[in-house]
Amino acid sequence: MLETVWLDDRLVRLVDQTLLPHEVRVVSCATPDEVAGAIRGLRVRGAPAIGVAAAYGIALAAACASALPGAERAHTVEAAGAVLTAARPTAVNLRWAVERMLTKAREARQEEDAAFAALLRREADAIAEEDRAANRLIGRWGEALIRPGERILTYCHTGGLATAGYGTAFGILRAAHEANKGIHVLACETRPVLQGARLTAWELLQHGIPATLITDNAAGALMARGAVDRVIVGADRIAANGDVANKIGTYTLAVLARAHALPFIVAAPISTVDLACPDGAAIPIEERAASEVTHVGGCRIAPEGITVHNPAFDVTPHDLVTAIVTEGGVAAPPFDRSLAALAGAAAGSG
Amino acid sequence: MLETVWLDDRLVRLVDQTLLPHEVRVVSCATPDEVAGAIRGLRVRGAPAIGVAAAYGIALAAACASALPGAERAHTVEAAGAVLTAARPTAVNLRWAVERMLTKAREARQEEDAAFAALLRREADAIAEEDRAANRLIGRWGEALIRPGERILTYCHTGGLATAGYGTAFGILRAAHEANKGIHVLACETRPVLQGARLTAWELLQHGIPATLITDNAAGALMARGAVDRVIVGADRIAANGDVANKIGTYTLAVLARAHALPFIVAAPISTVDLACPDGAAIPIEERAASEVTHVGGCRIAPEGITVHNPAFDVTPHDLVTAIVTEGGVAAPPFDRSLAALAGAAAGSG
Repeated sequence: MLETVWLDDRLVRLVDQTLLPHEVRVVSCATPDEVAGAIRGLRVRGAPAIGVAAAYGIALAAACASALPGAERAHTVEAAGAVLTAARPTAVNLRWAVERMLTKAREARQEEDAAFAALLRREADAIAEEDRAANRLIGRWGEALIRPGERILTYCHTGGLATAGYGTAFGILRAAHEANKGIHVLACETRPVLQGARLTAWELLQHGIPATLITDNAAGALMARGAVDRVIVGADRIAANGDVANKIGTYTLAVLARAHALPFIVAAPISTVDLACPDGAAIPIEERAASEVTHVGGCRIAPEGITVHNPAFDVTPHDLVTAIVTEGGVAAPPFDRSLAALAGAAAGSG
Repeated sequence: MLETVWLDDRLVRLVDQTLLPHEVRVVSCATPDEVAGAIRGLRVRGAPAIGVAAAYGIALAAACASALPGAERAHTVEAAGAVLTAARPTAVNLRWAVERMLTKAREARQEEDAAFAALLRREADAIAEEDRAANRLIGRWGEALIRPGERILTYCHTGGLATAGYGTAFGILRAAHEANKGIHVLACETRPVLQGARLTAWELLQHGIPATLITDNAAGALMARGAVDRVIVGADRIAANGDVANKIGTYTLAVLARAHALPFIVAAPISTVDLACPDGAAIPIEERAASEVTHVGGCRIAPEGITVHNPAFDVTPHDLVTAIVTEGGVAAPPFDRSLAALAGAAAGSG
């Protein structure tokens, strides 16, 4: 399988997700600014994946600055952290990974140049490796919830390339397929950036998971005619009370799931839980460029001069969420308690 | 303003809606088959507009066949009706307009050739003129429901080109704007064919109505933050009990409107009401080509080999509908009674 992002000497390499499914191209970032640009431009996307990319961005800064005097080296690495954190506001994994890397850099401030760079590279590798391991566990916990033959609706893209590997919500689909549960996936195309049509559909084909691509608008009609058994989505940030920020349109699916009495499952690593964020109202929602809505693949689809509102995420209130699947287990309501317990256990073991 | 469709000697002319907003091109259809092709290919679309196009298609058949012997002339016109009725299954206006034209042709079967062709042309003109008048009345009735400053979410395209002129749901927006109610329209792009982004946005700009284009996925989030006061949509067929078939995604908006206690208004001429159809389950739902989902403006957006499900319409159950605005007035629940009364009054006066 493709790696999502890695550090190759003094280049962060990543698979350019904007070119998929037409072309699998690896792009190289020579500076933390270029990594931040790749994150802003959605070349690398998915909450866990941008955390990993940012970690490698800081490892890159450490490698490039390793020979500088101590104060300057520290300043360079901290500045890289600031640039990377600012690249996108909603997914907390980005900030979480940067903070973890900066903590490591501060701990290692007395180290010689090569050792400093190696320590930070190892920390970034560890973040990636832990994310892959977390995804496998999410898949295993989530798979246990699935009954044979379920028709599972999913949204946006939460697969291998949205993470360090395997996937979150997508990991559950993979695990259920690998367990021969006979699932059928309904993949929503996910306007405006079409991560579902471009990336999820592609990964579903790669893994041979039976699937149908639908417009986001068809989800309600399919539920109304009893053609959906469960909804599984990822998350960009989960507040302490269980409110979930995820790709715009997730909230609509949650309202639909409730109206049709369907389980609405969120899958995310514990690094996506932000206990410092009391509820969804405190989560910043990124507004992205109008051109994401007015253009598709370079073709203009809307008239010049029309005003566009393009929020990239929405917040699903915790009372619409049936369960949150993490690597530490399945959190059930009340989420304020179950998430705190899972995060505490993870901090204790980590 | 542009006419949507008209008969020009022996050519049905129509504005090609697939090319908008990039290009305003009038295409010509020399046969009823070509008119049916334009309807199937969405060059002309919108339930009332395809009714009018079909009417002109039969007027065209009558003009071309007028010199034939009686039985042959009748057969040609009936055959044109069959081809046109079969072009698309969901919007009842198509069948309604064809039946009205064929009834006129049967009544006129003794007429000389020029008189026969003229009678059918006049009937098609009457259908178009009545539709324009109905839209004006829908606008007036609907406008009375709007409070100053409302932010109104609309879906798909129900404007001048979706009708013989003025628009249904869009006509209410126009009327409210013309009455200086200070409305702001939220236009959903309406995947997969993007009628909202391409056509509604264009007509909103043409009329100077303050508006914002959003992805369909943003509707829920906007409602959740109190940024929507009302939803107004059109219809392709309304069953006797008030169930509404309309563009795929309408049902989702109705569920969202209910969850946020917002009025959900349907606007359509009485020709869209099908009293022979007891409820939504009896309305045929057109499945359209996968390429509508996998391609945008000629660009492929989904991987080769992915299975697609692309229903063009969904059914909103009557209990999610607040009111149905027709040219005869505003139908309120219980719709079985209010729609029968409006249709009866229309038949009495027609």
